Amino acid sequence: MTATSPTTNERVEQAATRLFAQRGFHGTGIRRLAQESGLTSASLYHWMGTKEELLARLMRSALERLTAEARAALAGAGEDPRDRLDALVRVHVRAHAERPEQTRVVDGELGALTPDARAGVVALRDEYEDLWRTVIEDGVDQGLLVVAQPDLARRAVLEMCSSVARWFRSDGDLGVAEVAEEHVSLARGALGAR
Amino acid sequence: MTATSPTTNERVEQAATRLFAQRGFHGTGIRRLAQESGLTSASLYHWMGTKEELLARLMRSALERLTAEARAALAGAGEDPRDRLDALVRVHVRAHAERPEQTRVVDGELGALTPDARAGVVALRDEYEDLWRTVIEDGVDQGLLVVAQPDLARRAVLEMCSSVARWFRSDGDLGVAEVAEEHVSLARGALGAR
Repeated sequence: MTATSPTTNERVEQAATRLFAQRGFHGTGIRRLAQESGLTSASLYHWMGTKEELLARLMRSALERLTAEARAALAGAGEDPRDRLDALVRVHVRAHAERPEQTRVVDGELGALTPDARAGVVALRDEYEDLWRTVIEDGVDQGLLVVAQPDLARRAVLEMCSSVARWFRSDGDLGVAEVAEEHVSLARGALGAR
Repeated sequence: MTATSPTTNERVEQAATRLFAQRGFHGTGIRRLAQESGLTSASLYHWMGTKEELLARLMRSALERLTAEARAALAGAGEDPRDRLDALVRVHVRAHAERPEQTRVVDGELGALTPDARAGVVALRDEYEDLWRTVIEDGVDQGLLVVAQPDLARRAVLEMCSSVARWFRSDGDLGVAEVAEEHVSLARGALGAR
């Protein structure tokens, strides 16, 4: 693959994100993807490699962005694990409300990756989830959260917050900030915040 | 369409559920579906109609089963809205743990339906969610649950419980009953049960 102008890259990635989210990875043909990117199938391959490589790249960049946002939020969140939990919930809900197609692809198409690509994406996902794991463990250790099964609870709360991607509409009754605050309250309750 | 033996029907529905769950509706070709059902494409069409009709039928029967299970559980759950919530959580988690492919198709492929079929499925889904809506409203009215935004909270808790379909393994550390009880506790916490 050759270096390419951001514009071509971005156009392909936007089209791929939209199509994978709407039709699934297996339901998206290379021809359709090329067409919506304004390229021929041959030049799409030239710029982007295989469809699997494109999917893996989309997933990696989405997870890297999410992790960077979470780290930034934690840096400004103080020491109390409950406040740190709130910060993580806000980042996660906001990402899923504002980038629903991207997060839907990340959350739903892991099974479509080749084993190597999958291992790379799973490592990034684990890195992100470790931020949550640490906050929940700290909270339990300090008696500020009450969680019987921390791994199960973390996954449940993450999935609850991810689901915003499936229903949030920017022209709906609740804005992103309100939706995020409601999830802060639901997550605190689920994790037994004192 | 003609009446058919349960065996052919079941074989097709099982193959369709598996393929739609693994590859998405758009990613599943008629030829593959026929092959995995042990039929020709022509006889598949003869028995099952179009792929869209088959999807709609799968979704309707899954939702009807879930609603029947929820009604039965509520009938034995007493009057306290918190106990009725517990009963709904157990049914929902169990269905998603034991029938992950079926529930994944129901939860993920609504957008693939034609408008008419979609309206029918949405009506069944609303009927099911109304059971949850009523229990949460009763709990709030009686001061036994504390929920700022009941619609958002209902959706969030449902999605949290649905997510079990994406990770539960029958040979994992936790059995279905334990996973269900953990979600009972998470849901009670999220909905501010007193």
